Amino acid sequence: MDIAQSVQQLKPSYIREILAAASDKNVISLAGGLPDEKTFPIDLMTPTLEALPAMTQVFQYGSTSGYEPLIEHLTQAYRLPATHQVITCTGSQQGLDLIARAYVNPNDTVVMEAPCYLGAMQVFGLMQANIITVSQDEFGPNIQQLEQHFKVSSPKMFYAVPDFHNPTGVCWPLEKRRQVAELCIQYNVAFIEDAPYRELRFAGEELPLVSDFCPDHSIVLRSFSKVASPGLRVGTITGKQSYLAPLIKVKQGADLHSCVPVQAIVLGLLEHPDFPKHLAQVRALYQSRYNTLFQALKTYLSDDCQISPVEGGMFLWVTLPKCDTFKLAQELLANNVAVVPSPVFYPTQDEAPPAMRLNFTNANSEDLLIAVQRIADVLTNAR
Amino acid sequence: MDIAQSVQQLKPSYIREILAAASDKNVISLAGGLPDEKTFPIDLMTPTLEALPAMTQVFQYGSTSGYEPLIEHLTQAYRLPATHQVITCTGSQQGLDLIARAYVNPNDTVVMEAPCYLGAMQVFGLMQANIITVSQDEFGPNIQQLEQHFKVSSPKMFYAVPDFHNPTGVCWPLEKRRQVAELCIQYNVAFIEDAPYRELRFAGEELPLVSDFCPDHSIVLRSFSKVASPGLRVGTITGKQSYLAPLIKVKQGADLHSCVPVQAIVLGLLEHPDFPKHLAQVRALYQSRYNTLFQALKTYLSDDCQISPVEGGMFLWVTLPKCDTFKLAQELLANNVAVVPSPVFYPTQDEAPPAMRLNFTNANSEDLLIAVQRIADVLTNAR
Repeated sequence: MDIAQSVQQLKPSYIREILAAASDKNVISLAGGLPDEKTFPIDLMTPTLEALPAMTQVFQYGSTSGYEPLIEHLTQAYRLPATHQVITCTGSQQGLDLIARAYVNPNDTVVMEAPCYLGAMQVFGLMQANIITVSQDEFGPNIQQLEQHFKVSSPKMFYAVPDFHNPTGVCWPLEKRRQVAELCIQYNVAFIEDAPYRELRFAGEELPLVSDFCPDHSIVLRSFSKVASPGLRVGTITGKQSYLAPLIKVKQGADLHSCVPVQAIVLGLLEHPDFPKHLAQVRALYQSRYNTLFQALKTYLSDDCQISPVEGGMFLWVTLPKCDTFKLAQELLANNVAVVPSPVFYPTQDEAPPAMRLNFTNANSEDLLIAVQRIADVLTNAR
Repeated sequence: MDIAQSVQQLKPSYIREILAAASDKNVISLAGGLPDEKTFPIDLMTPTLEALPAMTQVFQYGSTSGYEPLIEHLTQAYRLPATHQVITCTGSQQGLDLIARAYVNPNDTVVMEAPCYLGAMQVFGLMQANIITVSQDEFGPNIQQLEQHFKVSSPKMFYAVPDFHNPTGVCWPLEKRRQVAELCIQYNVAFIEDAPYRELRFAGEELPLVSDFCPDHSIVLRSFSKVASPGLRVGTITGKQSYLAPLIKVKQGADLHSCVPVQAIVLGLLEHPDFPKHLAQVRALYQSRYNTLFQALKTYLSDDCQISPVEGGMFLWVTLPKCDTFKLAQELLANNVAVVPSPVFYPTQDEAPPAMRLNFTNANSEDLLIAVQRIADVLTNAR
């Protein structure tokens, strides 16, 4: 049976391959985007787990848009206007997939940052979108270039991760948020705001969503994978009802609805009085690991490596002197350290500057230190 | 933002509308395909629910193809050859969606039975497949017509529900299974065998899967929604690895993987010593309701209504004298009975003979009896 044309051009995921290699116990993995299992608030979920056997209704077919009590809670918590709504989905990854399926025709133009989240490239690639990229610096996307794209290419949407970007860790400052929102309104481009790391801020000041400045021109994706548990696969989509109605139609065919009992578990967690304390603990743990990684990189890496500080999230981006980053990643793996080389995050791999993404949420501080020393050794030997 | 062309032509689901109306407490619903909540084996799931807090790994990111211990169990239970594999998915509905996305290009030909499962029409419709239908009688699809389609239209796949068909309840006899399998091999057409009702046999002899006769030309979809709980959203896909590899690729972008804790719950359920007893109880309950419904229809409906007996599943199909079935369904709803009119199950509604689908698994025997009396009254008055 011939594979569909849209799937034929899907590249195999290098990340999946390196994660497989990184699962070796001797390897210190800075490659994945995994939260630390110790942070999973299982204690706070246990009351709901114990209550589930009496909640017969969560075992029956549910509503495509989500488990109503959770939907009600989130509508309040997100302070949605009356014209907006929440859908729960199987991780925010499904939210992105539903948006792409509901709106993107083959050859429709979608703007993304470069570098950008690999899973988004897969999703838009599968819909055979015409992907164009806007470059990014430590203050987010280049506004002149973005406006040029909006003007020349009339894209349908701009997909971005403004809070603690994957892979770079960049958090857009307030002014950039306003500017992007205004451009989206002016050129009638939908802003797809992917915010899985937003709750993982451990320094600096909390900023409004970009979508707060263009609520009727945006869809927001949120995730409980980083602050609760990825295994549950619960994410949310919010936006105006007219934007979300086609997503519900597509989701009906995609899976009827997402798993209901785990939506009840997420609700129990959000309503648990100790949930804010749990969040604070997660942030403190990741801040301490980040500090270790950042300081170690500053200490051990030579000056031709650039490391930008971050205020949250899960990743650090290290810009390297000119080199073959795939080869470097292989050598590091031979030295039992896993990292992700920069080209993986670019739709056109050739345009990738030499860099690597380092995760600081899964390995402990001791291992992070050892990993950096190994990275420094390999880089020195490569010189 | 303009909706994608593929979504624009999706019809709103009449079933969703009638189910909304049927949720009124005064309405006896024979419309949906809901199992009775009382059958959910929550007692048998409770040991796993209690064990989950100690199973940290199920809260972490999982494998796209499914929770390994469940995969191992099912590989044994389904007696898969070494070249085949199992994927777990978010209900078998997602399995169908993944197959369509992985294999169907716009205008690729897909053969379906007429009438057929509405969710399948949605999925293949969304992929803009060229859907052609084969007529069905009480012994399954018309073989001459099917071969003609295979010969003339070179379809990519034939989607069917051989066990207790939705909506007709038909179960293909052994000889038909062999014939269809042979045709699929001869014309190199993939057989997509949707088997959500297979475990709900309460009479007659168990038959092999159609796919047992063409294992390398088929993909089988199974569901735990009817024998465990639909809210969990756990289904499986089996087939040869080369068929399933592209599905895993698509699923990676669709949701990374399905919810893991509920896969552990399903495994606990399957391994529970009382699970076979649970299955027997479900079958006995549905058999008793089916008997009530069937006898009542035979007693109260006039001879120009044809009711074929079934040996399992969830549905009975009643062929009616010439009438406007949508109008009839409306009148029944005004009399507090919900049914689904036949045209809903036909890709081309005009070709639908007058009939209605009746579910016998959700309403109790008393209500089924009242419902039939009301149906008989409305039909008599319409004469």
